[in-house]
Amino acid sequence: MSDQRPIGIFDSGVGGLTVVSEVWKYLPAENIVYFGDTARVPYGTKSKETVTKFSVENVEFLMTHDVKLVLVACNTASSLSLEFLKRCFRVPMIGVIGPGAREAVSATRSGRIGVIGTNATISSGAYEAAVKRIDKKLKVYTASCPLFVPLAEEGWVDKKVAQDIAGIYLKPLRTKKVDTLILGCTHYPLLKNVIEKVMGPKVSLIDSAMEVAKEAKELLDASGALNKSQALGGHKFFSSDEPARFIKIGEHFLKRRIDCAKRKD
Amino acid sequence: MSDQRPIGIFDSGVGGLTVVSEVWKYLPAENIVYFGDTARVPYGTKSKETVTKFSVENVEFLMTHDVKLVLVACNTASSLSLEFLKRCFRVPMIGVIGPGAREAVSATRSGRIGVIGTNATISSGAYEAAVKRIDKKLKVYTASCPLFVPLAEEGWVDKKVAQDIAGIYLKPLRTKKVDTLILGCTHYPLLKNVIEKVMGPKVSLIDSAMEVAKEAKELLDASGALNKSQALGGHKFFSSDEPARFIKIGEHFLKRRIDCAKRKD
Repeated sequence: MSDQRPIGIFDSGVGGLTVVSEVWKYLPAENIVYFGDTARVPYGTKSKETVTKFSVENVEFLMTHDVKLVLVACNTASSLSLEFLKRCFRVPMIGVIGPGAREAVSATRSGRIGVIGTNATISSGAYEAAVKRIDKKLKVYTASCPLFVPLAEEGWVDKKVAQDIAGIYLKPLRTKKVDTLILGCTHYPLLKNVIEKVMGPKVSLIDSAMEVAKEAKELLDASGALNKSQALGGHKFFSSDEPARFIKIGEHFLKRRIDCAKRKD
Repeated sequence: MSDQRPIGIFDSGVGGLTVVSEVWKYLPAENIVYFGDTARVPYGTKSKETVTKFSVENVEFLMTHDVKLVLVACNTASSLSLEFLKRCFRVPMIGVIGPGAREAVSATRSGRIGVIGTNATISSGAYEAAVKRIDKKLKVYTASCPLFVPLAEEGWVDKKVAQDIAGIYLKPLRTKKVDTLILGCTHYPLLKNVIEKVMGPKVSLIDSAMEVAKEAKELLDASGALNKSQALGGHKFFSSDEPARFIKIGEHFLKRRIDCAKRKD
């Protein structure tokens, strides 16, 4: 049996395209519908109630495309709203917190894990809880880095100020001697060089996108819902603000040309 | 005759509270209804179509409070959407661009005016057009400063990185030897110290909030719509995201305690 229905993926903006990229690697036959809520981005500075309301609307939109699985690519929405979404909708859902936490737990040797993210993700304590659910003895240290998203969007990923800002935000985590750092926001991988410079070469940086794609594959396989076509899957990209801007910034995250995106009305 | 109806003010978030502050000074008897669209902030990175759609919704909300005048406190909404709003609604409206441009024109001695703002405000060319409408011979130089809003919201207004970032953004305007600089975003007055340090003491910094309040007074007076009560006016604050956060950040802009804010549903 082969399930042709697409996988739905949403994010507050373009950052979730890193998840699309990994799904293409691990599940090349799958069709994808991606929605980036670029008219209301960012989510990371907003309340649980607002992020959850937006997330519900996003999943409703994906459902109109008859998706068989929803990937919540946004760390803030995964932290604040995944549990509620799972209660609201019958479609299976995977967020980025669990997969990221699992990867960090298997990477750490010292048992000291750092997490960076938006204000909302960090205040939610979601990563900390996910790590502790796997192993209570692990130590988790967190820091919110609100300027990282605008820095990445400004393209200032190699400038000295980016390193200075990273130095300020990451200092407490260096003091705590973490050996593993979860990049708890889809924008942060763009600042990987700077973060690596500040944290040093011995600290493993964890980006959940790959783990999410692996987990999606396992889940679809286990439930007999893989698309077994030999051809490459298709994709549809939607954004709530102007598609031209979505395409322009999105290509940085996808590392590939985006031929078309449509506005969700 | 005395018109008790409130003045409506909207902004993409909390920054427009600087306009409220000036209205309190110039028009203490007026009632005020303020709406900050904190669930969808910022506007400055979004398209004209999206900002205009949001702005129309914001004015519709203010109209439910029977406002006699609308002040568009957001520079981006004033730049992209004011003309459309004026065609849509019969209520009189004042944006921040015209008043800011007029103040800059009367302040400049060298005839070289700088404008800083969000990407959307700067790309619109609205300040440049407003200055040229007054005097074609004036030179206008612009720079967008996307990191200023997150810097101000992070409270990093005196840190060295703030000065470094200001140094990068403002360098072209220093080279052009402007003697007047329009702070074309309601957040920028929070970075006044840093901007002053970079631009030097001889450059006048123009913040439109005061001029908007003066123009509101003239307009209400001319149309016989002033509130002539001897008592201080009342105020109602609304936000689209959590009121608690609106209050917390809003107090920095208002420089006064906010006793209550409600969520607009």
